[in-house]
Amino acid sequence: MTDLPWPVPALPHDLVARKLPYDPATPLLAPYTACAAAFRDGQDSPRAFLERRLETIEQADPAVRAFVLVDANGARKAADASNARWKAGAPIGPVDGMPVAVKDMIETRDLPTQMNSPIYVGWHPNRDAAAVWALRQAGAVILGKTVTTEFAVSNSGPTRNPYDSTRTPGGSSSGSAAAVGAGMASLALGTQTQASTIRPGGYCGAYAMKPSIDALHTGGVTPLALTQDHLGVFGASLEDMWAGARAIARHVGGNPPHLGMAGPDQAPPPARPRALARLDMQGWGETDGISRAAFDAACDRVANAGVAVADRRSHAGIAALETMLADANDYSYDILAWETKWPLSSYRDHGADMVGKRIHELLAHGAKITADTYTAALARRTALRNQVESLAGEFDGFLALCSSGPAIVHHDYTGSRSYALPWTMVAAPAFALPLLAVEELPLGLQLCGFRDRDAEACAVAGWLRDTVLGRVA
Amino acid sequence: MTDLPWPVPALPHDLVARKLPYDPATPLLAPYTACAAAFRDGQDSPRAFLERRLETIEQADPAVRAFVLVDANGARKAADASNARWKAGAPIGPVDGMPVAVKDMIETRDLPTQMNSPIYVGWHPNRDAAAVWALRQAGAVILGKTVTTEFAVSNSGPTRNPYDSTRTPGGSSSGSAAAVGAGMASLALGTQTQASTIRPGGYCGAYAMKPSIDALHTGGVTPLALTQDHLGVFGASLEDMWAGARAIARHVGGNPPHLGMAGPDQAPPPARPRALARLDMQGWGETDGISRAAFDAACDRVANAGVAVADRRSHAGIAALETMLADANDYSYDILAWETKWPLSSYRDHGADMVGKRIHELLAHGAKITADTYTAALARRTALRNQVESLAGEFDGFLALCSSGPAIVHHDYTGSRSYALPWTMVAAPAFALPLLAVEELPLGLQLCGFRDRDAEACAVAGWLRDTVLGRVA
Repeated sequence: MTDLPWPVPALPHDLVARKLPYDPATPLLAPYTACAAAFRDGQDSPRAFLERRLETIEQADPAVRAFVLVDANGARKAADASNARWKAGAPIGPVDGMPVAVKDMIETRDLPTQMNSPIYVGWHPNRDAAAVWALRQAGAVILGKTVTTEFAVSNSGPTRNPYDSTRTPGGSSSGSAAAVGAGMASLALGTQTQASTIRPGGYCGAYAMKPSIDALHTGGVTPLALTQDHLGVFGASLEDMWAGARAIARHVGGNPPHLGMAGPDQAPPPARPRALARLDMQGWGETDGISRAAFDAACDRVANAGVAVADRRSHAGIAALETMLADANDYSYDILAWETKWPLSSYRDHGADMVGKRIHELLAHGAKITADTYTAALARRTALRNQVESLAGEFDGFLALCSSGPAIVHHDYTGSRSYALPWTMVAAPAFALPLLAVEELPLGLQLCGFRDRDAEACAVAGWLRDTVLGRVA
Repeated sequence: MTDLPWPVPALPHDLVARKLPYDPATPLLAPYTACAAAFRDGQDSPRAFLERRLETIEQADPAVRAFVLVDANGARKAADASNARWKAGAPIGPVDGMPVAVKDMIETRDLPTQMNSPIYVGWHPNRDAAAVWALRQAGAVILGKTVTTEFAVSNSGPTRNPYDSTRTPGGSSSGSAAAVGAGMASLALGTQTQASTIRPGGYCGAYAMKPSIDALHTGGVTPLALTQDHLGVFGASLEDMWAGARAIARHVGGNPPHLGMAGPDQAPPPARPRALARLDMQGWGETDGISRAAFDAACDRVANAGVAVADRRSHAGIAALETMLADANDYSYDILAWETKWPLSSYRDHGADMVGKRIHELLAHGAKITADTYTAALARRTALRNQVESLAGEFDGFLALCSSGPAIVHHDYTGSRSYALPWTMVAAPAFALPLLAVEELPLGLQLCGFRDRDAEACAVAGWLRDTVLGRVA
């Protein structure tokens, strides 16, 4: 096991600078799931695939700082075992041998879980989180632990955007998004309680998904807000991501009583939607002109492909939904503050200086909230969910951006949540599709679906990718 | 901090023998909540109360072995702080200064949490479970950690029944039940996923309750089966227990979105029920004649007090319920095995010899269960719950035993679950009331209530106690 120093010392920004132009059509890393034939016929192997990832980490991570630690030895051992299964023509499934990075909010049996907190330096939970356990069952290779912002709450961390190290990778799943965006890992686990998967996915040029709530088991993920915590999955392609998410569902299911995300073990074939709804979300007002134009152009491509794109101006139901989504930011903070009282208060008991500013703010807000306020917020959330469901008869998904522009030049703020948070409240699936580029930086397109219809949303996401990238006529 | 040796060495049974005749009318420990006046006027103090508990521990624990470790220094410091508040006439609430023992499945910030597993020897979770955190907020004194059976699953542990050291204390909350039953603590936290609170409560002569599911926050309690895990509370009296449970609900609530168990902060006054339903449960067939007679006599007392006691013979709805309760044991094991796959499988990954026999059995059963089997079990559970609710118009509670007799002479089996498990499936409150004695051993009467009507059930439990003990005309 190679332990990188941790906590990562506070380096001057851009000690190692990195800038790469982003091209949505040519990702840095070929999809793992596309290598199956080469693994079978011996032209490539999971071990060789892993070695290339370790090289990428060695080259890129001094600038990106996605990893808290890399377990090269453990990964090599797991990859060799996978090699043998592929050679024997008997891989466990599509993620057998796939290199996976794990957000450091998620427990691992053989590696420390430190949550970017001085309280948890060197801490060993002694068990794998359900998702990690499931991925190991599926043959995946655990590559190491990735940077989270402190307890997935705070706004800063050492990680840099893989396409421009003056910019944030987004948070809180900073390291997982950056690791996949930089081609260091094929798959990475994150979490989303507000915007922590979709936002960094879009910023870092990584495919990302937040499945329906409870559809992927969150056991062993340090809890934050029980009714909002989602497992997040990042992938080098839609196919890698889906296969990883399904491997989790297949081997360990969802949070009981949820049986786990349904669908095929490999990504469903792209499916043309009947119609899509365009959502400007709360973030439109803060979105720059170039990003707006990029989103408009993507919507035009969809329309030109013959799929109607309705919006708030053309459809009263969408207008009503937009209003409710715009409200979400406001009451969602009440829900967050109420539900995070524990465990955050117990961390604060270690000393006021042992937790960061945003945790203090959340606890202060939580102390003011009454049960009535919380109940009212839940009622508004339920109304929002019902409004989404009411559109299921007409639309096969919702189109939005992942963020109000490409990653910002900042290292103490992980960017606006106003595009990603609202669909967290909906509890239905959301996909970050890194299909746009603005000034050579990634800008994510967000495809939102209906609750517990994750596979349908994935099929539409596939069609959207092909359409926006001009892969289909 | 006084660390007792752990793991507790495998002592010969009855190295230190103990036998005490049980008298339901004269508990070993006066209720803490009854001392408020003495604390206020200075005749007694939380610190003095604590010192008496530490003496009891010193005298009794070599035979009972309820504690994994006792934190005398930490407890004294907390008790002194409470002393000052009572002296100033400003206690935080009824549990200010109350000595509390915590089952070693429940995380504590300053004490190790070891789960009776070699995997977790010396493990520090670095945070308080929600319930522990809440009790500290309420001024309670954390006395130490109590023995659990391995991961709250296995059937044995070092603890002995406080009334007869040749007998089991029951499990899995063995130490918490025994600590309260022996008068070492006024309050103790446990868990119940099958029978782990009600059974040991009855065996050890402790008041115990399993509140409605989700009504007390289980954050920081090592999970077992997500839809069955309840926090359990033991008390030296009904009043101590209720005050402790409510302090948890008040300071940290339930599992979001549950607001937390409702009701007054001190136990509601005893309330005469309209009518009660007698349940023989699945366990009647295995219940000895003396215990049956004791239960019959208790039911007679209720009837003699003018409250009708209906049963399967007199009421078709109860007959239907009895049938469904009798089935619960069977499908509940499917639910348990499905839901415990994680985390138990991750513990087993440490090595087959690092987990006990019952964990292997559960995992083996879990490997055979299909989603259809699990779904069918959930449907049967829902039907059971609906049948209970259908009786709410006629009855104010259900009367049963806590176990099929007093604690058995065994140290590798914690006793039958057939009285306590069924109401776990119902997810509604259950109270263990140690009101009966059979051959000088405690036998618990169980009072079951309706979901999220815990306070009403507590009021009926109070009336039942007074009636069975002959305290009211």
